[in-house]
Amino acid sequence: MPAVQGCVFDAYGTLFDVHSVIAACREVAPDAPALSETWRAKQLEYTWLRALMGHYEDFWVITEAALRYALRRHGLRLAPAQQQRLLEAYYRLDTYPEVPAALQQLRQRYPLAILSNGSPAMLQAVIAHNRLQEIFTQVLSADAVRTYKPHPAVYELAPRHLSIPKTALLFVSSNAFDAIGAKAFGFQVAWINRSGAPLDELGFVPDFEIQRLDELPARLASSP
Amino acid sequence: MPAVQGCVFDAYGTLFDVHSVIAACREVAPDAPALSETWRAKQLEYTWLRALMGHYEDFWVITEAALRYALRRHGLRLAPAQQQRLLEAYYRLDTYPEVPAALQQLRQRYPLAILSNGSPAMLQAVIAHNRLQEIFTQVLSADAVRTYKPHPAVYELAPRHLSIPKTALLFVSSNAFDAIGAKAFGFQVAWINRSGAPLDELGFVPDFEIQRLDELPARLASSP
Repeated sequence: MPAVQGCVFDAYGTLFDVHSVIAACREVAPDAPALSETWRAKQLEYTWLRALMGHYEDFWVITEAALRYALRRHGLRLAPAQQQRLLEAYYRLDTYPEVPAALQQLRQRYPLAILSNGSPAMLQAVIAHNRLQEIFTQVLSADAVRTYKPHPAVYELAPRHLSIPKTALLFVSSNAFDAIGAKAFGFQVAWINRSGAPLDELGFVPDFEIQRLDELPARLASSP
Repeated sequence: MPAVQGCVFDAYGTLFDVHSVIAACREVAPDAPALSETWRAKQLEYTWLRALMGHYEDFWVITEAALRYALRRHGLRLAPAQQQRLLEAYYRLDTYPEVPAALQQLRQRYPLAILSNGSPAMLQAVIAHNRLQEIFTQVLSADAVRTYKPHPAVYELAPRHLSIPKTALLFVSSNAFDAIGAKAFGFQVAWINRSGAPLDELGFVPDFEIQRLDELPARLASSP
């Protein structure tokens, strides 16, 4: 494989912990983790379904729709202001604890980019909230091509905007479907498998698996 | 809306109970319903992901891959012959109890068709197992267009092969995503909501909702 010339990160679930919304869910739901699980599962499902139907809406609209569904499924009725507060928790997701230092190390060696389903406004907000503005040379949103991962048109944004061939880019994601989609597209791929889950059976396998982002600098230092 | 000139049915989950595999799962899994749930959820997810990635494999391959994932997730190791027996349960799914009589009634009035993600061999087997060969004028498989619902190319098979305009076809599905995708495509749509679930929030709403297929003949008799 060619030497890595740049790293491209998925955002939600990879750098930013989507379940940091659980704190906000606690104010309104007796079983906050279950509400957060349904919300996240439907958010992903709706990206795939809208992309396949050819009826794109941006990730904010989808996140809001997934929340509405999750609230109904869990039998919760919220005032509009409460619902808005839950949604806005997406602007203030925390990074996983090891992420900021690992990114600081990696940027000494490579250009770093984000490639996310998130809408540009959502991404700018969560990056600013975590003071990561200086880290990334590019923040790329699926919104530019109005479809969602794992459609190859989304992954194509990275080589195009970074001017680096896809085979020389390392794509990093915690979402198995995304790591697999990126591999099918032709990136080198690291899957961050924080929970020790089995890999989905979709015919493509990431190049390597780590448990936390801070394993990545050493892993890359040992490769050519 | 124009008068209905034909009815098009989804197969799995709508006519045939995918959870009739639970009996086969009981031989190998302590929690057979949970294994069946994971298997079905991943089966659907893999259709969407493979369609989006542009790496189509037929529904038998996907059903097998979803089973492999489900077994690993539930910590089960089966001999190849046991795994094969689980898979082959898909050839012998039962209909929901009210389905055969309701189809007999409907066919007095309309041409009936199946439009399914299932591969042609899977569909022929499950139809023969339930002795429904005489009921359907067409059995249409997504395999003909090598993508999956809710991609509009799959729904397009029905008006093309039945030579009936899509607005004069009633599409019937228990799968909310499928009922919604069919509505986005332009069919008239009945959603069979057997479990009283909330409708997914994807911007399109079926024309009406029933709880069982045997409500359909009366429902159609009362429409123009």
